[in-house]
Amino acid sequence: MSKELKLKITPLKMKRDRLLLLNQILLPRVVEWVECFDAESVSDSIKKMHVRGAPAIGIAAAYGFYLGVKKIVDNGEKVTPAKLNNIKTKLDKARPTAVNLSWATSLMLESALNYIEKSSLQNKKDMNSLQLLMELYNKAVSIHEDDAVRCLQMSERGADYIVKKRSLKKYRIMTHCNAGALATGGIGTALGLIRVLQQRGLVEMVYSCETRPYLQGARLTAYELDKEKIPVTLIADSMAAVLMQKKMIDFIIVGADRITKNGDAANKIGTYSHSVNAKLHKIPFYVIAPKSTLDNSITKGDEIIIENRDSSELLEFNGVAHAAKVKVLNYSFDVTPRENIEAIFFEDEVI
Amino acid sequence: MSKELKLKITPLKMKRDRLLLLNQILLPRVVEWVECFDAESVSDSIKKMHVRGAPAIGIAAAYGFYLGVKKIVDNGEKVTPAKLNNIKTKLDKARPTAVNLSWATSLMLESALNYIEKSSLQNKKDMNSLQLLMELYNKAVSIHEDDAVRCLQMSERGADYIVKKRSLKKYRIMTHCNAGALATGGIGTALGLIRVLQQRGLVEMVYSCETRPYLQGARLTAYELDKEKIPVTLIADSMAAVLMQKKMIDFIIVGADRITKNGDAANKIGTYSHSVNAKLHKIPFYVIAPKSTLDNSITKGDEIIIENRDSSELLEFNGVAHAAKVKVLNYSFDVTPRENIEAIFFEDEVI
Repeated sequence: MSKELKLKITPLKMKRDRLLLLNQILLPRVVEWVECFDAESVSDSIKKMHVRGAPAIGIAAAYGFYLGVKKIVDNGEKVTPAKLNNIKTKLDKARPTAVNLSWATSLMLESALNYIEKSSLQNKKDMNSLQLLMELYNKAVSIHEDDAVRCLQMSERGADYIVKKRSLKKYRIMTHCNAGALATGGIGTALGLIRVLQQRGLVEMVYSCETRPYLQGARLTAYELDKEKIPVTLIADSMAAVLMQKKMIDFIIVGADRITKNGDAANKIGTYSHSVNAKLHKIPFYVIAPKSTLDNSITKGDEIIIENRDSSELLEFNGVAHAAKVKVLNYSFDVTPRENIEAIFFEDEVI
Repeated sequence: MSKELKLKITPLKMKRDRLLLLNQILLPRVVEWVECFDAESVSDSIKKMHVRGAPAIGIAAAYGFYLGVKKIVDNGEKVTPAKLNNIKTKLDKARPTAVNLSWATSLMLESALNYIEKSSLQNKKDMNSLQLLMELYNKAVSIHEDDAVRCLQMSERGADYIVKKRSLKKYRIMTHCNAGALATGGIGTALGLIRVLQQRGLVEMVYSCETRPYLQGARLTAYELDKEKIPVTLIADSMAAVLMQKKMIDFIIVGADRITKNGDAANKIGTYSHSVNAKLHKIPFYVIAPKSTLDNSITKGDEIIIENRDSSELLEFNGVAHAAKVKVLNYSFDVTPRENIEAIFFEDEVI
């Protein structure tokens, strides 16, 4: 595996009986690991955004599924398809927009059901629960490791495409939110591509949009790039258009939480506005994501259900209110139509 | 005067020996009045954004000029043109983008120089300093009262224009930053127009963009509209484009800090991006400002010097750092080109 996969930053660590999630709400001020012993606490952590980023959520959910089954086994109860389905439902509802979540839990459920079916076919009276747990643990680990490989593949594919499309001595890149190591099981998607370009000596500056209201850009992307010694400048989301106006951006790269059949991409709120500005200013706008982000069950972007999160995210900061208690709209994601996207980089192809 | 001018909210109060400025950095959590006894402290308060909004800054600077001259007189020193010019320079440099600041201090300087010239023509040995102070005090008050009248005039003119242009039962309006009573000597500019529409029963909802990094929309506009019982919904700046995409906005109205000869408008950072999105989504984008905002010395928007403010505004919140100490770009304003603006409402005309 590439040197780039050896990162100091990881959003999660699996121990036999617990999942440790780096509390990304507190980063970079405080480095705290949240311990999850069951599916409920993993679901809760996903909801609270201790872990975020579509691929990382999927991986956490896979481990959460394992912990959910482990709890049933530890309690001496029987593992039934209904109980397995309950675990999946519990995890899936934590973040409705990220398709990787239900993708990962589907894989886990499938593994478990296959094992149960196999056991019943073999006419075993009692299923070997420990064997089932081992299968599920390995499955979750494989989803995790697989994501790391995919990150590298799509990052190299995307970097090659960009360099071939328009060769520059160095690139001035803009990104939104955090599609980095902190959001995945590997080097990241958007920041993965930036890491690959950096390794080739091609990065002049990365402009990281702070990404209101959760400030993933200010807190996580700035931190992650700074740690890797990749030049980074923080801007408010609303400054992005001005940088484009002043011709300070060569291309924009963002991750995605869900991509529809026709190529519309749901990503963190603010992405759509950047894409509109990029179009007007004729700046290439790229999306990079694993194939698991592709949701063929949805034809067009306007069919995607967008989370409207709690008003406190806009009215408070660190628990202190800074605004009058007025009505709030707090869409967590938006949808960028395919016509605003120059290319989408997957691990196996560019579309 | 209209009923609307009787507002409870005012950004400043002049007492004979001091100017009281409502500390808008702390609003709405804390209501604190900053006392300024001289031009230095007024300049400092403008710089620190205790008072903000182009017209209010102009009014504060006019009173600051008066206090500056008063200090010279109180110290028993001679009032000279050079000293008067020093006071103007001191005040002008506090916020370079707001043209009303130097407009107001120019009026004050002119008044003072006229008085001195008149005195010298009358061959008076000693100028009557108290008479000069009285002249300057009255001049500052007239700039203040004049602004209140202008706010009402441009607001009614703009409201008439919008209703005539496209008659709706009620309007869903978006605004950015705070161009309200808190930013002026009267009912405000953008919020003045909204107040006029509200009085006519025509406001369905005002979407207030929070306006990073200083959150004037979240802290001030939401507070001001809520106090006036005008329906208001707070959104992150990056959500504006999505609301336009979902056809939830009938028109956008913003203030301006400087308007060039050709009609380009400098306003709070984020305005330009909204204008680009408005253009693409075919939503009318209006600017409203007093004529004093017009700077005929500047032909095009790209000649305007844009403040790059302190990085702490993006790295910290209430003095607590939330981001790694990376490089920051913190443009305070941006320039919206005339082609993105459907109309500009002045007190005496629509262009």
